Amino acid sequence: MNTYLECIPCFFRQALFAAREATNDESKIKEVLDRVAELVPGIPLNSSPPETARLIYRVVREVTGRADPFEVYKERSIEKAKSFYPELKSLVERSEDPLRTAVMVAIAGNIIDPGADPNFDLMREMDSFLSQDLSIDDYESFRHRLESAHSLLYLGDNAGETVFDKILIETVGKDVIYAVRGAPIINDATIEDAEKSGLGEIARIVSSGCDAPGTILKRCSREFLDIFETADVIVSKGQGNYESLAGVEAQVFFLLKVKCPVIARRWMIRIG
Amino acid sequence: MNTYLECIPCFFRQALFAAREATNDESKIKEVLDRVAELVPGIPLNSSPPETARLIYRVVREVTGRADPFEVYKERSIEKAKSFYPELKSLVERSEDPLRTAVMVAIAGNIIDPGADPNFDLMREMDSFLSQDLSIDDYESFRHRLESAHSLLYLGDNAGETVFDKILIETVGKDVIYAVRGAPIINDATIEDAEKSGLGEIARIVSSGCDAPGTILKRCSREFLDIFETADVIVSKGQGNYESLAGVEAQVFFLLKVKCPVIARRWMIRIG
Repeated sequence: MNTYLECIPCFFRQALFAAREATNDESKIKEVLDRVAELVPGIPLNSSPPETARLIYRVVREVTGRADPFEVYKERSIEKAKSFYPELKSLVERSEDPLRTAVMVAIAGNIIDPGADPNFDLMREMDSFLSQDLSIDDYESFRHRLESAHSLLYLGDNAGETVFDKILIETVGKDVIYAVRGAPIINDATIEDAEKSGLGEIARIVSSGCDAPGTILKRCSREFLDIFETADVIVSKGQGNYESLAGVEAQVFFLLKVKCPVIARRWMIRIG
Repeated sequence: MNTYLECIPCFFRQALFAAREATNDESKIKEVLDRVAELVPGIPLNSSPPETARLIYRVVREVTGRADPFEVYKERSIEKAKSFYPELKSLVERSEDPLRTAVMVAIAGNIIDPGADPNFDLMREMDSFLSQDLSIDDYESFRHRLESAHSLLYLGDNAGETVFDKILIETVGKDVIYAVRGAPIINDATIEDAEKSGLGEIARIVSSGCDAPGTILKRCSREFLDIFETADVIVSKGQGNYESLAGVEAQVFFLLKVKCPVIARRWMIRIG
């Protein structure tokens, strides 16, 4: 997916958020914004937003000296998500169609940023989400593809949400490879985060090799590309993976909540 | 008021909005964003946001060649607001405390951007707003000051809202000078817009001489400063006037809706 002009103000918003997470030094935060501003004229609109986000978070790391500004944030998110695991697991098991409910739980995980608001009433949000229809629903096709599939490649997104992915993976009951970012980027899951989320018990965790908040194939490792090219079914979580994989020739099932007006307009659906 | 780091992403959002209002040429819009990016390192954080907004809208004008990109938008806003005038006027007249209701109507005018959403149910919003308390309420002090005042200086903000200001000015029943921007800037009212709103019938309209979306005293005309310094009471509408006048030694009554998290945090109140 291309970068839209609307992405540019959003890059600054993200840079500010990440810089504040990394440091309290206002002059350093201003320096991050100044350096992001220097990047703007060079942003190619035909590259995907995660490609630029990659450069922005590099600036944040360089200026603040913090290799993983979201380390604590991610840890809190995973702990919070784990506290909901038993209830959600039982919700799926008691459901008439456990696979569909597990898909919905995994998508709901993508709305919820447990680190953002500690008082967030996750179960209430989950209940309200589960009673909704999906705006774009390829569930039947997904279920059908799964039936004949041996292997499934699952592209993770945020740390915390990983715990919800675990429930879906358990429900699918196939050999799953769970792919994560090649380096810490925003609150996206790395191998360590996936391990902490308990994914190691039920899937093989691999790095995509890509250090962007998405899956940019030309930046992925050869090992990952081999898996990507031979997987029977690919599940992709989140906007960043969608932004980088939209248009790629591969049968990918995208599970995500739409968080920005650009994608909402692209799909002619509403945010949320 | 100083510029906060949160203002920087917002400057880009505003530049994009204004550029889209001025042209459909995506390459020109990108050029606006590139040139705003060039401004970023030079933004002094100890100047007020309208000071920077002034430079941003100059870029929009220069790149797009449109002297007043919001001309049509403002005209629509004024027409829309005028259609509500009779109902609001009667609401004020029927009220137990017409002055207070007129103040509330004038503040409500600052929430409502009639150009933004043509289907906006203004009367419903107005009803819900009028039943609320103000977050910061200096009404008693304002009423008291008015009693002994001969002259009132009223600093206008957006075109459209001007019609709501008219109702308050009629209710006040004093000699009023209504000040507007020195040049078209965003959807802020100019002399022409104030005339179209019918303010010329009940007040003397003057230009502040300032071409920023606020009242930056050092950029105002000598004529305006004389009025400002001798007015018995000053009423200031909107965030831009507040941002540029906060901290100035003068007794100013600020009527505004808080539209951004920076000011909400500064005052420890909620947006809206």
